[in-house]
Amino acid sequence: MRAVDIIRKKRDAAELSREEIDFMIEGVTRDRIPDYQIAAWLMAVLLRGMSRAEVAALTEAMLLSGLVLDFSDLPAAKVDKHSTGGVGDKTSLVIAPVVAAAGLYVPMISGRGLGHTGGTLDKLESIPGFSVNLSLEEFRRVLELTHCALIGQTPEIAPADKRLYALRDVTGTVESPALICGSIMSKKLAEGIDALVLDVKTGSGAFMKSQSDAENLATILVETGKRMDKKVVALITDMEQPLGRKVGNALEVEECLDVLRGEGPADLRELCLELSAWMFVLGERTKTVADGRALAAEMIASGRARDTFREVIRLQGGDAKVVDDTERLPRARHQSHVAAAASGYVTGIHCEQVGIASMMLGGGREKKEDSVDPAVGLVIEKKIGDAVEAGEPLCAVHYNLEARLAQATELLKDSFVIGPQPPAPMPLVRKIIGDAAAEAFAINKK
Amino acid sequence: MRAVDIIRKKRDAAELSREEIDFMIEGVTRDRIPDYQIAAWLMAVLLRGMSRAEVAALTEAMLLSGLVLDFSDLPAAKVDKHSTGGVGDKTSLVIAPVVAAAGLYVPMISGRGLGHTGGTLDKLESIPGFSVNLSLEEFRRVLELTHCALIGQTPEIAPADKRLYALRDVTGTVESPALICGSIMSKKLAEGIDALVLDVKTGSGAFMKSQSDAENLATILVETGKRMDKKVVALITDMEQPLGRKVGNALEVEECLDVLRGEGPADLRELCLELSAWMFVLGERTKTVADGRALAAEMIASGRARDTFREVIRLQGGDAKVVDDTERLPRARHQSHVAAAASGYVTGIHCEQVGIASMMLGGGREKKEDSVDPAVGLVIEKKIGDAVEAGEPLCAVHYNLEARLAQATELLKDSFVIGPQPPAPMPLVRKIIGDAAAEAFAINKK
Repeated sequence: MRAVDIIRKKRDAAELSREEIDFMIEGVTRDRIPDYQIAAWLMAVLLRGMSRAEVAALTEAMLLSGLVLDFSDLPAAKVDKHSTGGVGDKTSLVIAPVVAAAGLYVPMISGRGLGHTGGTLDKLESIPGFSVNLSLEEFRRVLELTHCALIGQTPEIAPADKRLYALRDVTGTVESPALICGSIMSKKLAEGIDALVLDVKTGSGAFMKSQSDAENLATILVETGKRMDKKVVALITDMEQPLGRKVGNALEVEECLDVLRGEGPADLRELCLELSAWMFVLGERTKTVADGRALAAEMIASGRARDTFREVIRLQGGDAKVVDDTERLPRARHQSHVAAAASGYVTGIHCEQVGIASMMLGGGREKKEDSVDPAVGLVIEKKIGDAVEAGEPLCAVHYNLEARLAQATELLKDSFVIGPQPPAPMPLVRKIIGDAAAEAFAINKK
Repeated sequence: MRAVDIIRKKRDAAELSREEIDFMIEGVTRDRIPDYQIAAWLMAVLLRGMSRAEVAALTEAMLLSGLVLDFSDLPAAKVDKHSTGGVGDKTSLVIAPVVAAAGLYVPMISGRGLGHTGGTLDKLESIPGFSVNLSLEEFRRVLELTHCALIGQTPEIAPADKRLYALRDVTGTVESPALICGSIMSKKLAEGIDALVLDVKTGSGAFMKSQSDAENLATILVETGKRMDKKVVALITDMEQPLGRKVGNALEVEECLDVLRGEGPADLRELCLELSAWMFVLGERTKTVADGRALAAEMIASGRARDTFREVIRLQGGDAKVVDDTERLPRARHQSHVAAAASGYVTGIHCEQVGIASMMLGGGREKKEDSVDPAVGLVIEKKIGDAVEAGEPLCAVHYNLEARLAQATELLKDSFVIGPQPPAPMPLVRKIIGDAAAEAFAINKK
C-alpha cells in the first residue's frame, strides 16, 4: 500500500477501505507518512467527504492509535459530556461534580481554548494550584475517590489526533465533519466510557453557524458512537449568545460555583441540568430525563455536588477554598464598561466577536503556543431580549493591560445589535439526536 | 497575508488574486511556506480548479521565480515545441535540427522520462558523450553557433516548479490542468522564446486519455501563452499507439536519424513535418503550413538538418559520428520476440502498457532517482490496422537483464488487441487549437 494511491483514491471521491484508513492512521501515528502527504489527504477528505463506514473506521483507527482506558472494574457506569465549543460555555465544571455526586463516574479528558472559544483546562487552571497534568495512574486514583477527575490530553491517548490536529489547524482542514468526528470521538472513547452526551453548539458563537450543519455533525457523531457500541445522544443547543453572563477563565469558574450554590444565570443552570439528566439516563442512573433533572437539582441543593468539586480540587492540587470563597480566584486589576449607543432591545449578539474580544484581552489563545491570563474577561450585562437604555452598560470588561482594551472595546461595541422590538425567544435546546430510546424520552419531555 | 487563509479561500472555491498567488509561489520559491501547506493548497487547486486569470497569474509567478533568458539580440525568431509526453514520442530530435537548419533559433530545455513516457534528455544521453548539463552561457554559445541547443532544466529556471513538481508527484496532484499549465509554460517561456508549438497527446499512451481532456488542457495552455504575448498553437495528436516503431532511448535516436536521412516510419516523419511547419509559421519563416512542410522536407532532403544535428552533438560533447553510423549507439545484448496468439488485424494497442514494458526493461524510470539503460527497448513490428498471422512477431524486445524479460513480455502480450477487421484509420493530427490565424491555416490546409 502507498500513501499516494490512497490520496488519489480519495481525491477521486472513492470510498476508502478500513485497511487503507488504518494504513494512513498508522502512518500518521508512527511518523511513517510525511506531513505533506497527510495534508493533501486531509484536504481531499474535507472536499470529497467520507461515508459513515469510513468515519467509523477513521475514528476507530485514531482511537486504537493509543491507549484505551479501562475502568470496567469500577462499580457504576462511566459517562462523559463533550461540547463542540462556544463562548462562555462552561458546563463541564458544573456537570462533572453533579453527575459524580450522584454515583456515576466521570473520567473527563478536556482540551484548551483556541480562537474565540474557551477550554475547560484553562478554566480549571485559574483555580490556584489546580493541576490538569495528571498521570493516568493519578487520574484513576482521583476518579476512584471522587467519581470524577478532570485532566488534559496525555501523550498515551489518541496520539494520531495530536499530529492530525496540528496539521488541520494550518492547512484549512479543521471544518471537515469526518475529521471533527474522528478527533472528538477517538479521544472521548479512549476514556473508557459507556455513554457520552454531546452538546453540539449552533449559532454565531459556534463552529457550526447553521443548525443544519450542527445536526449533520451531531448525526455523524452519534452514529459513529453507536457503531462502537457506546450509548450516545447529542443535544443541539443555542450559541447565538454567550452561555451565562461571564466569559473568561476565573470569571467562568466563579459563575459555575454560583450555579453549584443554587444561584447563577438561568440559562447556564438549565443547560447543566439538562445535560446532567441525559448523562443519568444513558448511565442508567434514572429512567427518564425528568427524573435526571430532579436528581441533578438535588445534587446541587444538597451541596453534594459542591462537596465533590471541593474534593476534586483538593486531590488535583488546587485551592479547594475557592468553592466557598470566590475572592480567592484571580481578579483583573481594572474594569471598564461598554455602553449602549441606542435604546431598545438587544436583538442579537455577534457571539464569535465577543469570544475574540475576550481572547484579545488575554483570556484566550490566537495560536496554540500562546499563554492565557486567567483573570481577564467579560461580564455580559444585557442578553438577547433584554431592554436597554442608551448609555447603559452592555457588558463589563475585566482587563489587566491597558494596551489591549481599546481594540476589545471596539469589537464589543459592534457585537450587540439593538432594535426596537425584542426578538421571539429561542429555545436553549434546539433538538435532540440519538437512538430510539432517546427520541422517546424527548417526546415524553414535551 | 497568511498561507492558511489562501488555502481556505481556494478550498471554498473562491478565485485567488494575483497577489495571493504571488504570495504562495514566492513562499514556495524562498522556502517560506512549509511543504504541508503547499500540499493542501495543491489538492484544493486540483479539486476546485482555477480560472484562466488564476492560471495566468500562477504561470507568470512560476516563470518569474527564476531567470527568464533573453535571446532578443539573436537575429531570427526563437521558437520551441513541447509535447505533453507519450510512448516513442521522439519528435524533438528531428524537429530541433530541422527548424534550426532553416534559420530559426530553437533554445530547447527538456525533461527526463517518468513512468511510461520517455524524455528527450534520456534519449540524447544515449549518444555517447552527449552532455545535457550545459551552463546557461554554454547553452547560448551552442545556440548562437548552430541555432539549436538541447539541455536539461537548470537551477536558475523556474525554481518554483522544481519544488511544486516534487510535491505534486507524491501528493496525487499531478493531474490538475492549472498546475500542468503552470509547470509547462513557466519553463518554456523562461527559454526566452517568441513562439511555442504544443503537441498535446491524447489516447491510451497519453496522460490525457480522452480527446476532450486534451483539448481542455490545450486551450488553457494556448490562452495562457497568449496572455503572456507569445504566439502559441496546440496540435492534438494521436497517442493510441507508439509513435514510429521504436521505443527506448538509443532505439529512438536511431529512428530519428532514419527520419533525418529521409527514411523512417511514415507517422513519425509526418508529425515531425507538421510540427516543424507550425514552428516556421509562428516564427514567420513561412507564410503557410504547406510552405512550412515543404521547407522542413527540404532541410531533410538537402542533409542540412543532419549537418546541424552533427554540429549540435559535437558542441555538446557527443560522438557526432553516430549520425552517419548508428552502430555506434549502445545496443542491448539480447533480443526476443512477442508473437501474436491469433490471426487477424491489430485493432488496438494498450500504449501505456507498452511504455511500462519498456520501463521494466530498464528503458525508463519508475521513480525520479532511477537510472536508465540506454540500450534496451522495443521495436513494434505490427501497428494498428496491420494484418497479422498467429505466431508472427508483434514486437521485438531488446534487453540486457534476463530477469526483467518475463514480466515485460507478459505485459506486451496483453498490449496488442487482435480482431477480425481492421479498424477505421484515425488521423495523426486530431485538431489544431490556436488563434484566428492558426485556425485559418488549419482551414487552408484542408
